[in-house]
Amino acid sequence: MNITFLPIDIEKAHQRIAPFIHKTPIFTNAFLNNWVGAELFFKPENLQKVGAFKARGAMNAVLNLREAERKNGVATHSSGNHGQALAWAAAQNKIPAFVVMPSNSPQVKIDAVRGYGAEVILCEPTLQAREETLAEVVAKTGATFIHPYNNVQVMAGQATCAKELLEQIEGLNAIVAPVSGGGLLSGTALSAHYFGKNVRVFAGEPALANDAKQSFDAGKIIPSTNPNTVADGLRTSLGDKTFPIIKELVVDIFTVTEDEILAAMRLVWERMKLVIEPSAAVSLAAVIKHKKQFAGQRVGVIFTGGNVELNKMFANI
Amino acid sequence: MNITFLPIDIEKAHQRIAPFIHKTPIFTNAFLNNWVGAELFFKPENLQKVGAFKARGAMNAVLNLREAERKNGVATHSSGNHGQALAWAAAQNKIPAFVVMPSNSPQVKIDAVRGYGAEVILCEPTLQAREETLAEVVAKTGATFIHPYNNVQVMAGQATCAKELLEQIEGLNAIVAPVSGGGLLSGTALSAHYFGKNVRVFAGEPALANDAKQSFDAGKIIPSTNPNTVADGLRTSLGDKTFPIIKELVVDIFTVTEDEILAAMRLVWERMKLVIEPSAAVSLAAVIKHKKQFAGQRVGVIFTGGNVELNKMFANI
Repeated sequence: MNITFLPIDIEKAHQRIAPFIHKTPIFTNAFLNNWVGAELFFKPENLQKVGAFKARGAMNAVLNLREAERKNGVATHSSGNHGQALAWAAAQNKIPAFVVMPSNSPQVKIDAVRGYGAEVILCEPTLQAREETLAEVVAKTGATFIHPYNNVQVMAGQATCAKELLEQIEGLNAIVAPVSGGGLLSGTALSAHYFGKNVRVFAGEPALANDAKQSFDAGKIIPSTNPNTVADGLRTSLGDKTFPIIKELVVDIFTVTEDEILAAMRLVWERMKLVIEPSAAVSLAAVIKHKKQFAGQRVGVIFTGGNVELNKMFANI
Repeated sequence: MNITFLPIDIEKAHQRIAPFIHKTPIFTNAFLNNWVGAELFFKPENLQKVGAFKARGAMNAVLNLREAERKNGVATHSSGNHGQALAWAAAQNKIPAFVVMPSNSPQVKIDAVRGYGAEVILCEPTLQAREETLAEVVAKTGATFIHPYNNVQVMAGQATCAKELLEQIEGLNAIVAPVSGGGLLSGTALSAHYFGKNVRVFAGEPALANDAKQSFDAGKIIPSTNPNTVADGLRTSLGDKTFPIIKELVVDIFTVTEDEILAAMRLVWERMKLVIEPSAAVSLAAVIKHKKQFAGQRVGVIFTGGNVELNKMFANI
């Protein structure tokens, strides 16, 4: 295998971040088990700090800064949970954070980043504007750029989620996670490989943002082209650090429609009483769609986050 | 004290129902602690079987049936969670269940009762129609009527919720629960009295359905008059078995407005990622409104259930 990641990287990450993160519990649901015909073990990272697994990777990256780097803080570009997570991790470590966000980000996410004390720099909603603005911020502040996923410390942090799941539930046959940039998926695959026994890793991806599936099938990274899925956390492209791991260790990527994502999300709200965001429902949607693949198995399903804009929903009560 | 309930009744109920119910975990939230200025320990009974604490009381009542009673099953009238809970408890025990529901009940609740295999009998949405229809059902089927709250086995079952909370969290100063018929509140007060050390019990109640507060202040039951609060689980009146306990053991009842209920519910969805129903948010709304009362204390807050009609909310996504 061409992968330079070692189990010790993930173990060290876990030890390092453990005092700061929640060890999220495992949820089960008799109705969903019955419906899918498998034993599902849900890892609800919507209950994680900042409402998403991103707290793990961001905290690990911040804790890995050298002393000289700490005083200038950290910077990133993010429309979503990584921005909140980095702001939170920086605040916990009493260092500055700068988050470049597209001007069309949901207000709830901008407010949340600011709520953790980070400086938000708004930019045009294009990848080019994001990267240029970030470069300016880094040049001006000397902050260390923490990439949302294409960063080995972030990946090691995200890997702790599946490591925990494997410690909590014995005899898993499979784990299913959503894929976007691949930070969580590559980490999940690494943990399954190193800490599991024949645990097969699958991904779910919105059909409207199926660049990971295309890349997986083609054997090379095919970037996403401004996809417009309701799963707003899954719109970015794979990275050159995440893709090789995914290519080598993931069994398959299942794409799901917008309706399938929303139906799965609603099932979780209704049946499990958990607020998950559309991106988080993609893993369950993939399991439901491909239930034959999982028949009779013990399947870990990662709910990635729960940061939903509730304004419109509550307007109707 | 004039109360005939003994600790052993609650202990036996807990032993009896334990194999069937979830021991719901305790949730905490740094944001809410900070906002209220107290340490809050949430008991999320929205994660309970059937999505509400009512599973406890219904199961205890069903498990207390005599052998001769079991074959004719159980009956009740309920627009909400008690109907589902009794249907579930009956199904678990393989006995028939008959649930009289007002014809304007949310479809999701009618479907849920039927989903557990119970027979639903719809009636006009008046108390008189409910009681008459129930009497007919009981006469025809020989089923045992299990009152939603004014039943000592139901009360003992509901009391197990606070008993668990007291076992899970040491040194609680107070517990806050919503009040409607008083099954949960009387059970909570009994458990705090018997199993807690100086644990003060408070209730939250919608101002639009403030019959319990009126009754508490007047020292006699003042029935509710068809109240129209968004907290649809809190529209009924106190019972002659629940009120004496509440009068004797509860410190105060705090009323909250519709806006306060919905704001508290939204906070829980947004910050704790838990789907709770409006009735469940009444306890937190009361704590927020009266935070001076709880300053610096360790406060248990019961979230009663999570059965919300999501159609309208999801129509807007």
